[in-house]
Amino acid sequence: MATKKKATGQAAQNDEQATQQKTTGQNDVVPVAEQEARFVEDLADMDDFAQWYHAVVRKADMADESPVRGCMIIKPYGYALWEAIQRGLDERIKLTGHENLYFPLFIPMSFLQKEAEHVEGFAPELAVVTIGGGEELTEPLAVRPTSETIIGHTYARWVQSYRDLPLLYNQWANVVRWEKRTRPFLRTSEFLWQEGHTVHRTEEEAEAETLKILNEVYVDFAEKELAIPMLKGRKSTTEKFAGALRSYSMEAMMGDGKALQAGTSHNLGQNFAKAFDIQFLDADGTRKLAWTTSWGASTRLIGGVIMVHGDESGLKLPPRVAPIQVVIVPIWRKDEERALVADAVAAVERDLRAAGIRVKSDWREQTPGFKFNDWELRGVPLRLELGPKDVQKDQAVLVRRDTRAKEFVPRGELAARASTLLTEIQQALFDAALAFRQRRTYQANDFAELAARMADRANLGFVEAWWCGDAQCEAEIKARTQATIRCLPFARSTTATEGACVYCGKPAQEWAVFAKAY
Amino acid sequence: MATKKKATGQAAQNDEQATQQKTTGQNDVVPVAEQEARFVEDLADMDDFAQWYHAVVRKADMADESPVRGCMIIKPYGYALWEAIQRGLDERIKLTGHENLYFPLFIPMSFLQKEAEHVEGFAPELAVVTIGGGEELTEPLAVRPTSETIIGHTYARWVQSYRDLPLLYNQWANVVRWEKRTRPFLRTSEFLWQEGHTVHRTEEEAEAETLKILNEVYVDFAEKELAIPMLKGRKSTTEKFAGALRSYSMEAMMGDGKALQAGTSHNLGQNFAKAFDIQFLDADGTRKLAWTTSWGASTRLIGGVIMVHGDESGLKLPPRVAPIQVVIVPIWRKDEERALVADAVAAVERDLRAAGIRVKSDWREQTPGFKFNDWELRGVPLRLELGPKDVQKDQAVLVRRDTRAKEFVPRGELAARASTLLTEIQQALFDAALAFRQRRTYQANDFAELAARMADRANLGFVEAWWCGDAQCEAEIKARTQATIRCLPFARSTTATEGACVYCGKPAQEWAVFAKAY
Repeated sequence: MATKKKATGQAAQNDEQATQQKTTGQNDVVPVAEQEARFVEDLADMDDFAQWYHAVVRKADMADESPVRGCMIIKPYGYALWEAIQRGLDERIKLTGHENLYFPLFIPMSFLQKEAEHVEGFAPELAVVTIGGGEELTEPLAVRPTSETIIGHTYARWVQSYRDLPLLYNQWANVVRWEKRTRPFLRTSEFLWQEGHTVHRTEEEAEAETLKILNEVYVDFAEKELAIPMLKGRKSTTEKFAGALRSYSMEAMMGDGKALQAGTSHNLGQNFAKAFDIQFLDADGTRKLAWTTSWGASTRLIGGVIMVHGDESGLKLPPRVAPIQVVIVPIWRKDEERALVADAVAAVERDLRAAGIRVKSDWREQTPGFKFNDWELRGVPLRLELGPKDVQKDQAVLVRRDTRAKEFVPRGELAARASTLLTEIQQALFDAALAFRQRRTYQANDFAELAARMADRANLGFVEAWWCGDAQCEAEIKARTQATIRCLPFARSTTATEGACVYCGKPAQEWAVFAKAY
Repeated sequence: MATKKKATGQAAQNDEQATQQKTTGQNDVVPVAEQEARFVEDLADMDDFAQWYHAVVRKADMADESPVRGCMIIKPYGYALWEAIQRGLDERIKLTGHENLYFPLFIPMSFLQKEAEHVEGFAPELAVVTIGGGEELTEPLAVRPTSETIIGHTYARWVQSYRDLPLLYNQWANVVRWEKRTRPFLRTSEFLWQEGHTVHRTEEEAEAETLKILNEVYVDFAEKELAIPMLKGRKSTTEKFAGALRSYSMEAMMGDGKALQAGTSHNLGQNFAKAFDIQFLDADGTRKLAWTTSWGASTRLIGGVIMVHGDESGLKLPPRVAPIQVVIVPIWRKDEERALVADAVAAVERDLRAAGIRVKSDWREQTPGFKFNDWELRGVPLRLELGPKDVQKDQAVLVRRDTRAKEFVPRGELAARASTLLTEIQQALFDAALAFRQRRTYQANDFAELAARMADRANLGFVEAWWCGDAQCEAEIKARTQATIRCLPFARSTTATEGACVYCGKPAQEWAVFAKAY
């Protein structure tokens, strides 16, 4: 990202400030050098992006390894971000007319086999319960990898008449897909998500629902709250959901130029309606097969937030979803100063909270320098410093996490100024991410150009090109460059309606976005 | 409950109103008689409480059967109640200083075996995954029945110094216990719950935490929001959590006089700390074993709400958690009237919503009588009727679900009056439940009295009696009467400090509450 390199040297600068500070009357303070060593290693080198990612996840206390293969523990700071994501999505899911419900975790194996493409896609990844209450089960139960089948089975009973339609339901749940290679948030054997499942009278209604979810729920949330610009489009047949008629997705560009599929919405056509016999008596008196959709977004979004906005100092959280929006770091040397500062901090904290700001004061024993680094690592959008001199001058210092811009603000204006800055930071994060994506989006006329782009690790990004629509070309490009078609974007950056396929050179009408992906 | 029998005849009365009404211009309206038949069967006979319960769950669309043995589908109306319960508990869990996180669904079997009592308690109820990704697992994984073991294993790593303590964490999750006999919400193989897991430096702190959760989270929530009076106390050794030092619970009396354990909080002592080696370096420089607690409340609470407040007409939802607090039923005969009424309804709906009331207008094709019954069945606290005459008089009719009291209210006062009534209904439900429990709480001096109370099905309730503390007496009472010790209550209804054991007659110091339980 544009701003990523600017941070270099900031940790060292905070270190200096830190060594100048002393805590008072504490015997058990860890030596400053040792305290701050943790910030130096790992994070500085963003060129090893995978290593940087793991370091941020661990150091910012987002997640921890678990004793269960491929499963993570989501720690409180990471979970608080998930709660913000849940709130933002849930609100939009309800505003678009959906209700939440809950289906069982287990799915009879025979259900999964009813839709041919679906079972082919998910069978290799299943966790299977074979023992219940000490006895072998007559029919093994899959732990849900997704719930189209058990929901489809039930909808067949719930849907009788056209008057029952549409069914607009969603559930928040955990799902399990036995993954070979896992990464916290991005790909784990168990993950948390929401999955929407709807039934409609006509193909048009199902298609409208699929696109409404993509636009009004997923993209609206991701762009406004997570400050992540999204590329919207249709998935190629190879990349679509197992059993879907058409899949749509939103794709985000990570800090290393790779793509993250951040939410998908599927028009399932009549495939699941056929497999599970979801029929309704229409107004014209005839029985008809229904049309269904499904759509999901998951804890993967947390990985997206980390990889889009983070820098060498750690996380940068968008203010609208940050668990802590303003951290107050009190500064003092002597005990008398501490008391003086404490009163002012308490008053400021009240003011900010009254203005609806999520605020936390950090009274730990460590040095201010340690705390500055720690909260930068955790990506808190605004830091408020308040020391004895500030008390005298009736002011405080506000420091932005994104630009490091620092300003002295009179006490009476702190809440208003902090609110304004939070809004500005939210926009600035989005703008920076968008500018980065635009800079790293290329076009390729032939395979050599495409391959060269995919080989240039330092400038990796999205490559737009014509594609003939042949899965064979798509597969060979993937085999040779690791790039997949992320989507066939709704908005094309070309006005031409056809060109030559980037791989085979034959006439092509599909404008595709290729990228390496998580 | 006191009010349960008063309802008799109300369904019939609504039927009459309904048959007087006609819908306009609809060809496909189901005949009134057929529409309303569903309200008559099943619900009227509350003497068959189990049958009544199943009928309410089904008819009020709270839950549905699933194709997976022992698992239910929580339908949107039931799930909305769960969301209200989650909000109320989560708020209190956070206010008492806890944070949410998330641990894996799966637990290695070897973990469960580390605490002897724990494995004995849960092993018979486990669902076990033996296949993952198409291959047999080297170590089978239990689907969590509760998470003390995997969390204990992890806490051993997170806790190093006394400065790390206390750890105050909670998770919202699904758990699985393979039950032989299941009932929606009350006992299902999979259920949703929150489970808190904390670590402390001393026994006193662990005990204080255990009681704080019981009092400030569970009982406070259940009494204020669910309007269910709770009996608080300690569990007998037989009834305590497998692996706990002491268990506390809140117990509620259902409409049939049986008890429902509605939330439990366990002081785990050092049992799990020993099993998982949770040690910390204390301020005095020595390594010490930590003290842990755990506590949980689940979708079972929904069953409690149904069984405490319900009557022959169906659910009665406490206003504070009711998904819909006021339902507006527009009344019209002719199309012109419909337009007139629609304007007034829209205005009233806006007023109520602006006052923070959850309101819904029911414009379905069915008759008002059908709708009255339907919303009574669903337990909406207040019904607002609005017809052409009301428009002329600039008023509306408000009808309470609990007392059926009906009043005409001027348009301008509707929102304020509805708010007041909702508060009154909330309190009235609590008062009625408390009065019922008091009326159905008895004392027994000997086993004959206790047995007689447990045999009197029509007046079943809680029986208080002295108990010698011997598990043998407890077991024989259970074998002969089905009554178990629900708790040793904190508040005793006797000032004596000892008496004769209700079973063996030996000196006894424990004052116990016996009841049949769900």
